[in-house]
Amino acid sequence: MQYKPKNINTKKEIQSPLLSKNSSMTNSQNQNQQIQQLRTLITDIDSAMLTTVDDDGSLHSRPMSIFSDIDTDGILWFFTFANSHKVLEIERYQQVNVSFSSLNQQRYVSISGTAELVRDRNKLQEKWQPKLQTWFHQGVDEPNIALLKVNINKADYWESPSSFSPQTIRLLELSHR
Amino acid sequence: MQYKPKNINTKKEIQSPLLSKNSSMTNSQNQNQQIQQLRTLITDIDSAMLTTVDDDGSLHSRPMSIFSDIDTDGILWFFTFANSHKVLEIERYQQVNVSFSSLNQQRYVSISGTAELVRDRNKLQEKWQPKLQTWFHQGVDEPNIALLKVNINKADYWESPSSFSPQTIRLLELSHR
Repeated sequence: MQYKPKNINTKKEIQSPLLSKNSSMTNSQNQNQQIQQLRTLITDIDSAMLTTVDDDGSLHSRPMSIFSDIDTDGILWFFTFANSHKVLEIERYQQVNVSFSSLNQQRYVSISGTAELVRDRNKLQEKWQPKLQTWFHQGVDEPNIALLKVNINKADYWESPSSFSPQTIRLLELSHR
Repeated sequence: MQYKPKNINTKKEIQSPLLSKNSSMTNSQNQNQQIQQLRTLITDIDSAMLTTVDDDGSLHSRPMSIFSDIDTDGILWFFTFANSHKVLEIERYQQVNVSFSSLNQQRYVSISGTAELVRDRNKLQEKWQPKLQTWFHQGVDEPNIALLKVNINKADYWESPSSFSPQTIRLLELSHR
């Protein structure tokens, strides 16, 4: 059975799929608000499951640590190794899902987007955080270190502080890339 | 960055993809052990994220309550409404992923499988549990009530009671359907 929030905020914030980032100040403000709302939703959830499609069409997921906020362009960044299997998968099929689950808070977020590999050194340095040393001992000089850039297209979320009901809120519908 | 278990049990239990359910007692026993292992992994995680592929190729996930064990054939069952969007999605594209996250226990499970809709009344009654009344007020007589049958093909899991390392254990490689 699917979890669904009962006492929901029925306000729906759906932006036009044709919205460009600078189409108007209002749209830009809306987008900023939506990104801020999404950031708030995933606050305190420090890992996510990234789902990709494999060569044979099967769907795989794996836990990913969250080390940075969603940036102002609605992009989620993960550090990775460029030769990992998930990178092969996204090179063949760009669509991914990033899901966040907080059982304690009964909050669930599904982010749909496209992923691409970024190896730009400036970007690696910009996104680097000391905690990452656990996996990348040589920091940004680690062989095969790379970033997985997830361009967020849509986010759905479910919150149920007290109960459930058959409603879903769509949070973002961006086409900023 | 991807979570990876450091102090892992390095035992790998991979069954032949050609294994049929009754090919031998040994294989059957292995399969039972693997299913039992998978059951143990998801014990105490009472919700999962189900990821499906939409018509436009994008990946969506949504939280699902777990009300029954994985059965002896390696099948995971969810109650659903036959007219829900995810059912439309699996009718077009059967491959799904079911992910379990336990942040407290630092345990993550990814189940890859194929999904199909089951409306058989006997099966509905067999799998029915009183807790489901919250969503299906009329029980198995609820209009559009159905089961989502997920045939598990593979499960990966990550456990890190103390730390992480670059290893993954594959749990199941079944081809019993």
